[in-house]
Amino acid sequence: MQKKNERAVIVGASAAGLRCAARLRRLQADRQITVVEKGEVFSLAACGMPYVLSGDIPQEGELLKTDDGTLRDLAYFSEAKGIEILSNTLALSVDVEHHLLKVKGPGGVHELPWDDLVLATGARPRRLPGQVQHPRVLSFHDLGDLRSLDEGLKKGKIRRVLIVGAGLVGCELAEAFKAMWDSEVCLLEAGPWPLAQVLDSQSGAVVAHEMKRNEVELHCDTFVKDILADDDGVVVRAQDCEYKGDVAIVAFGVQARVELAQSAGVRIGPSGAIAVDEHMSTSIPHIWAVGDCVEVSHVVSGAKLHMPMGSLANRQGRMLANILAGRRQVFGAVAGAIAIKVFDLNVGAVGLSLDKAKKIFPTAEAVWSAPHDRAHYWPESETILLQMVFDGESRRVLGIQALGKGECAKRIDVASQLILAGAGLEDFCNLEHAYAPPYAPAMEPLAQLAMIAENHLDGVCAKAPDSDLHGLKILDVRTGDERKEIDIPGGDTLAVEQMEIRSKLSQLPSEPFMVLCSRGTRSAEVCRLLRQHGRDACYLGGGVAWLLAMGLVQKN
Amino acid sequence: MQKKNERAVIVGASAAGLRCAARLRRLQADRQITVVEKGEVFSLAACGMPYVLSGDIPQEGELLKTDDGTLRDLAYFSEAKGIEILSNTLALSVDVEHHLLKVKGPGGVHELPWDDLVLATGARPRRLPGQVQHPRVLSFHDLGDLRSLDEGLKKGKIRRVLIVGAGLVGCELAEAFKAMWDSEVCLLEAGPWPLAQVLDSQSGAVVAHEMKRNEVELHCDTFVKDILADDDGVVVRAQDCEYKGDVAIVAFGVQARVELAQSAGVRIGPSGAIAVDEHMSTSIPHIWAVGDCVEVSHVVSGAKLHMPMGSLANRQGRMLANILAGRRQVFGAVAGAIAIKVFDLNVGAVGLSLDKAKKIFPTAEAVWSAPHDRAHYWPESETILLQMVFDGESRRVLGIQALGKGECAKRIDVASQLILAGAGLEDFCNLEHAYAPPYAPAMEPLAQLAMIAENHLDGVCAKAPDSDLHGLKILDVRTGDERKEIDIPGGDTLAVEQMEIRSKLSQLPSEPFMVLCSRGTRSAEVCRLLRQHGRDACYLGGGVAWLLAMGLVQKN
Repeated sequence: MQKKNERAVIVGASAAGLRCAARLRRLQADRQITVVEKGEVFSLAACGMPYVLSGDIPQEGELLKTDDGTLRDLAYFSEAKGIEILSNTLALSVDVEHHLLKVKGPGGVHELPWDDLVLATGARPRRLPGQVQHPRVLSFHDLGDLRSLDEGLKKGKIRRVLIVGAGLVGCELAEAFKAMWDSEVCLLEAGPWPLAQVLDSQSGAVVAHEMKRNEVELHCDTFVKDILADDDGVVVRAQDCEYKGDVAIVAFGVQARVELAQSAGVRIGPSGAIAVDEHMSTSIPHIWAVGDCVEVSHVVSGAKLHMPMGSLANRQGRMLANILAGRRQVFGAVAGAIAIKVFDLNVGAVGLSLDKAKKIFPTAEAVWSAPHDRAHYWPESETILLQMVFDGESRRVLGIQALGKGECAKRIDVASQLILAGAGLEDFCNLEHAYAPPYAPAMEPLAQLAMIAENHLDGVCAKAPDSDLHGLKILDVRTGDERKEIDIPGGDTLAVEQMEIRSKLSQLPSEPFMVLCSRGTRSAEVCRLLRQHGRDACYLGGGVAWLLAMGLVQKN
Repeated sequence: MQKKNERAVIVGASAAGLRCAARLRRLQADRQITVVEKGEVFSLAACGMPYVLSGDIPQEGELLKTDDGTLRDLAYFSEAKGIEILSNTLALSVDVEHHLLKVKGPGGVHELPWDDLVLATGARPRRLPGQVQHPRVLSFHDLGDLRSLDEGLKKGKIRRVLIVGAGLVGCELAEAFKAMWDSEVCLLEAGPWPLAQVLDSQSGAVVAHEMKRNEVELHCDTFVKDILADDDGVVVRAQDCEYKGDVAIVAFGVQARVELAQSAGVRIGPSGAIAVDEHMSTSIPHIWAVGDCVEVSHVVSGAKLHMPMGSLANRQGRMLANILAGRRQVFGAVAGAIAIKVFDLNVGAVGLSLDKAKKIFPTAEAVWSAPHDRAHYWPESETILLQMVFDGESRRVLGIQALGKGECAKRIDVASQLILAGAGLEDFCNLEHAYAPPYAPAMEPLAQLAMIAENHLDGVCAKAPDSDLHGLKILDVRTGDERKEIDIPGGDTLAVEQMEIRSKLSQLPSEPFMVLCSRGTRSAEVCRLLRQHGRDACYLGGGVAWLLAMGLVQKN
């Protein structure tokens, strides 16, 4: 149990630091709490910045207000929250022996004594090696970046934008520049597809197609070497090509700010962020760390990762306050749930992609589906595309990817709870959901997806939606109307509607078939039937819906 | 392990029976499977019927089609699914000793031998004792009911509708008649508020207010005795009042069809539905039951309940096929997740209401919140109203209720997984969600709600949103703008903005306070502060947002 008058010094006035401070104040009215902040912006909802640029959010000031419209300024934290913030004050170094923090503020350099020191120093944008300092070469991390871009756009000085990195921020920015400003956007990604950290190739292809549909120039497998900038513009130089534009935004991730931690001798983890135990304690007693500067454990891979998410920062900040107030709490492993809006596409993922899973689980496999997000007869229902990654041996579910116009984030949130609990295919098959036609189908898509995985393990073998169909014997079991609407290019295709398969079984040629339908459900049934009759068959997971979303087929 | 050629006879061609049949056919191609159906409609998506009446779904035929537009008729089940359905065939009785099912079909009475008998006999609408048989007195259960109402509406013969029962079906019907036809709707409910089986008084008041806003005449605490009908109209007679209309719809629930089960001597459970074990086996070996005719176990109360939901029927049907095919599977307890659209309100619940919980957990309590469903600065974010029921002693979460224009079903689905896992407040506080401003706030509302519950147990005492404020000293900590927008009627109110509380603490009068704000967050903080300074205080859970939704205050 902490003594109430012990001094807590918190470095960093963003989500993690301030939530910790405010909660600690509420729990211990008499405790001395000081927050040290290098700037003069507090508790900025930085995740909203792309939407200020896109015009979805009318003013940047919204990102600094509470939900009742109060500005989160010094007075707010002092009067409403009872928290003292030393703004414009840089934390320089930690003296562990004497429990002192050296800071440089408006009044010069001085030392703050602490009994508990909380590092909430956040993260900074990664930069290219030797990256040039120039107003045309920006990150997208703080209000300065936002204002600079906003001004350039409003003055008509930015017409062509080069974005380096098609991760979460890069993809959001691509939409922001297109949606409001109709800028030319060129998105350069070193990986083989967008969001490659969380998506497999098929989901990545869906995002890439959405980019293309919205006239974003996306260049994957493009390693940026350096950026040149002058008064006329920028040139981003990649391995074998140069890209010109008015501004370049370097958005290939962030790295934890660990200099202060290092000055204290705190252990840095394998991810490059501060290593903490499950009570947010660093390697040095009474020095704690929370938010974008720490690493977390992944529940599926077991790996230590740097996962700078506002949601985790908020949870950690509050929990650490509880711990500092003497409550025993545990910050467990995370499943890595993410969601992102890419134009009209809702995209979400949790757990591991198949690519990543295979490195840890050699028997990892995947299946795909393309269900309606609500009852299929509900007029506002939309198709969503789902992928499940699972371990074929243990049947544990390792990851989910969801994309489409429909409700994806809901599926990710539900899957998060199950993956965190170590759920297997049977648990997913039997998950309970609130069913009504405006909200969900009678069979929840996540449950249906697990059933598809069980069937796959029974031998009803799903092939990836981006499988090469050329040279395969395709059995197209869609109806005539469906076939008329969308042709399947390439391949040697035989069309037999599902309804006719049983009667025509004996007449089918003897080659192995790749069975195909609109969503992968009928084709799976036919695939099973063929196999029961001694035929070799597999089916295209997710069917034509996935092909369409990846841009591999078009509607006639 | 079953022999493949064993004969399975399934009674009932709705969701549970047909899913069982189709899955069993897929698993065992050679098995003899016969489905016996009393009518000639198969696999009707009856949950969609209210939306045909409301015009949301253009044609009733949609409810009989697969998601690729194929009609689910005899030919479909025969050719696509390999299932033989004996339609227009009534199952009369079971001879357990000789494993025979006596049926009466188009060809007369005969007996079907079975090795496994599956009862999927469904449920029928409850009727009033001695309910009159008249075309103006209907249930809302099958296509006949739907057509009859649709015709009456189209011919202008139905202008005023009396609905007996404000449960799920009654509430959906009230909207259906209003939305498309602008009928006069009079909704009569024996309970004290609508949806009283799943909602507490406060949530019930929100639904009641939504009904009123949409000009539905809602009469609660109204016990219908009988219904008179003649060529001119109907009269519904309640304990102390009569209601006149053109048609009466009796919609106060359904009861399991158990006559066939009883003919076999199968045990009927305390709920009046067929008792089954966790493998869907009845009390008689080789007689199984699934769907709306069976009872389930509730994971929180432990009670056996009749919960006729399409989602459960589908799961049970598929699982039983797996079991009949020799796979060991378990249908576990359910959390009772439901969702319903009531005009512009999305409503959902899972677990127990406080009223029900208190009968089992004497230390059950509740808290309320009114968060944004997405980042509050996201333009499309909406306020949702949440209630959490939990056991104050064990800290186990017992139930969630969610209402509002915003995303409610998602929260119910997430809460379902946690409640099924026996989660406590701390588990809810630490739940991981996919955060991005278009989908959720950084702190997921369900997690925040659990934090409110923890604070309540710390002494930051939440009072129910429908608490009587008269005679209380109210401390209104909203801003001036907020107070101008909505007055709080009654009570002795002192207005001090949260920002000013710390400086004015010593000047506040000494009475106990009921603190109040817009969403219950600032008031809870102030309540804690007052208590830390030795003052007696509680706060109004969910704040003015709940008062507004219940119709207890209005915007100026």
